[in-house]
Amino acid sequence: MTPRVAIIGAGPSGLAQLRAFQSANAKGAEIPEIVCFEKQDDWGGLWTYTWRTGTDELGEPVHSSMYRYLWTNGPKEGLEFADYTFEEHFGRNIASYPPRAVMWNYIKGRVEKAGVRDWIRFRTPVRRVEFNASTRKFRVVAHDLVNDCESDEQFDYVVVASGHFSTPNVPEFKGFETFNGRILHSHDFRDAREFIGKDILLIGTSYSAEDIGSQCWKYGCRSVTVSHRTAPIGYKWPSSWEEVPLLRRVEGKTAHFKDGSSKKVDAIILCTGYLHHFPFMEDSLKLRTANRLAAADLYKGVVWVHNPQLFYLGMQDQWYTFNMFDAQAWFARDVMLGRIKTPSRHKMLEDVAARVAAEDAINDDYGPILYQGDYVRELIAETDYPSFDVDASDRAFVQWKKHKKADIMGFRDNGYVSPMTGSMAPVHHTKWVSELDDSMEGYLKSVTR
Amino acid sequence: MTPRVAIIGAGPSGLAQLRAFQSANAKGAEIPEIVCFEKQDDWGGLWTYTWRTGTDELGEPVHSSMYRYLWTNGPKEGLEFADYTFEEHFGRNIASYPPRAVMWNYIKGRVEKAGVRDWIRFRTPVRRVEFNASTRKFRVVAHDLVNDCESDEQFDYVVVASGHFSTPNVPEFKGFETFNGRILHSHDFRDAREFIGKDILLIGTSYSAEDIGSQCWKYGCRSVTVSHRTAPIGYKWPSSWEEVPLLRRVEGKTAHFKDGSSKKVDAIILCTGYLHHFPFMEDSLKLRTANRLAAADLYKGVVWVHNPQLFYLGMQDQWYTFNMFDAQAWFARDVMLGRIKTPSRHKMLEDVAARVAAEDAINDDYGPILYQGDYVRELIAETDYPSFDVDASDRAFVQWKKHKKADIMGFRDNGYVSPMTGSMAPVHHTKWVSELDDSMEGYLKSVTR
Repeated sequence: MTPRVAIIGAGPSGLAQLRAFQSANAKGAEIPEIVCFEKQDDWGGLWTYTWRTGTDELGEPVHSSMYRYLWTNGPKEGLEFADYTFEEHFGRNIASYPPRAVMWNYIKGRVEKAGVRDWIRFRTPVRRVEFNASTRKFRVVAHDLVNDCESDEQFDYVVVASGHFSTPNVPEFKGFETFNGRILHSHDFRDAREFIGKDILLIGTSYSAEDIGSQCWKYGCRSVTVSHRTAPIGYKWPSSWEEVPLLRRVEGKTAHFKDGSSKKVDAIILCTGYLHHFPFMEDSLKLRTANRLAAADLYKGVVWVHNPQLFYLGMQDQWYTFNMFDAQAWFARDVMLGRIKTPSRHKMLEDVAARVAAEDAINDDYGPILYQGDYVRELIAETDYPSFDVDASDRAFVQWKKHKKADIMGFRDNGYVSPMTGSMAPVHHTKWVSELDDSMEGYLKSVTR
Repeated sequence: MTPRVAIIGAGPSGLAQLRAFQSANAKGAEIPEIVCFEKQDDWGGLWTYTWRTGTDELGEPVHSSMYRYLWTNGPKEGLEFADYTFEEHFGRNIASYPPRAVMWNYIKGRVEKAGVRDWIRFRTPVRRVEFNASTRKFRVVAHDLVNDCESDEQFDYVVVASGHFSTPNVPEFKGFETFNGRILHSHDFRDAREFIGKDILLIGTSYSAEDIGSQCWKYGCRSVTVSHRTAPIGYKWPSSWEEVPLLRRVEGKTAHFKDGSSKKVDAIILCTGYLHHFPFMEDSLKLRTANRLAAADLYKGVVWVHNPQLFYLGMQDQWYTFNMFDAQAWFARDVMLGRIKTPSRHKMLEDVAARVAAEDAINDDYGPILYQGDYVRELIAETDYPSFDVDASDRAFVQWKKHKKADIMGFRDNGYVSPMTGSMAPVHHTKWVSELDDSMEGYLKSVTR
């Protein structure tokens, strides 16, 4: 019997898993039967865009957290596929911070070339995954939304690749029940132009707050106020931007902060992160982890220590993304193909503990980048995923952080060296602050100034 | 063995089912073991209010579609509990269109008196319901969100009381992807003051459009435009309100309609109804019905014809609500207690077909009210639910419709005769158009002008 693999999600992680198997097959390996379940109607995961918020037209929670005018907030040199470069896809190198449509096109390009679309069942959310200890098979129940019918099937392996930036973490503050404006999580932010002329309050200091604030500022909001729990973000913000301590309460439209200051605001955007959320996994298979570099219970960051027929991809906090998912998917594939043997549960738990300890020992801003670079390097050394210059990626990330510190509204005007081709990215034809066209056509019009 | 009953939802329908069993027990009957699963952290279903939209703090889709300042849009005399009157709860009769907080208090009053709160597992969404044909038991998997653990139990009966006004039906129109304002479904509407000074476009002509438009008008939006597919609502609207044909497309912030007219708008509110959505029910147990008076596949509007151990409450389109849910819950209870025998599947299907045909034969505006009044009367005649003057309820609904036609912004200033006590409702101390206080304290301050 050919073994069967269920992959949950056709975003960057799930597509990496499809590509990993297709690559092995192209080199002559026998591969399992693959079924990829995807809730959305197209591939690309978070990189799809929808105007929808809440639940979609068929009642499923909206997956994507993308907003209009989004450009990558890290350099593309940190996420390039080692087996499919930007130069291969676009026929030339492009600038370092592409808008969403360009990134989505790039992601699709690789899997279109691989020809794996037929392995995916679109508009088919997984309702339930259970493991039968006696048959050692998984039961996967999924709902084909278009035909409105369920499937109920057995699999030998399950790969959870449904991401962890889709289910918002939404705290409450006193007075929210009676706030007279809009309260939303960054997951539901869509068009910065909604906030033209408005005073907006952002809660949180991570990427969403930085980027949504920058977008709203760029498109003409009246002011940006960012509230932090522990410390301000600390970049050199424009004059209409201020950082304040934690929100204490809201009265009417007035927000009151811990230092006694207050501000009248029209909208409150909760940039408070996301939950790891797997309502479809039975209790004993459910990953429960903080958003950190060393995720809980995953041997090599991939294999579920309590059942090595189960894999989770991309569940870490992330500097590295696409090529890290690749490194993980190739590793998971090789476990499933029997090329890599997993050690005892005890040894796997030791591996996790060592990763946690190493992360806890990091004590500077750049440490997490190097830590995750090392992790990617470790994984790709164990499979046939093309080796690449991880140091060059590390360097791009380090430069990126420095560029942000120097000019938060100008960092996207920089370019970096590709870790795959070694070539320097060209400069985009228009500075980010004045570029209102986020279309792929506009971005590719010209790649030199 | 005591039989076990799972009730899904602790809103008006689920609470009716709890009260039905408790009432039988109080009269000396042996009753099954009851477990009521409730996703929210309190009872009351749709009548709870939350500022949240999308998913909640634990990642579950937000159930409630309530907004601030909501007053009932139909007279309380149409929904009064026959076994627990408004007079009993408040110690006197109150005016006919109470705000949400008052209604919630009334709903809670009955079940607090009944002492059934311990039967409910709060913050525990049901993940999966399956039926085992050989044991003739249901398997119910539920997730205790607070303790983050699953239960997996057997039940003899399942009552689905999770409502059908929680999962929005969200159509798409051309240009939504690039609209430069806010697009939301009425499910996510919260505070009318967000729209002060704004031009709003409502899509749809049913209760949500009427009431959200009226709210926004009352609280100071600049204009209300209502787009219809087939016919305008047709009430005498204020001067800043217009009805237009169907939306064709949106460009920037401009909405273009089928008649060639256009309007610049700040927000688009989709008042386009809800889906019957039961993602936790296995395929063969899942109700699939249009939102109509004669729901598909439900004998007497309650018993699942394909398996009479399964019940659905309140799945009809509704004029009658609370006391109709009661009538259904008492009927379902008596089937479970063996007091009522269900006929053959063939006979049950005939019953459904006859109800569909009778609904299809209705040909005037008031017919649906009388049809549903007759249905309530039919059901309560078969159980010990207290009989009441259904004609008086019918009359309240008919008068209500006439009052709306006469003065859409003033209809809530009228009062009606209680079908339970026969007493006339007092008039609220302040006219609805100028009453900005929607608190229970404010509403009960004085009940006469």
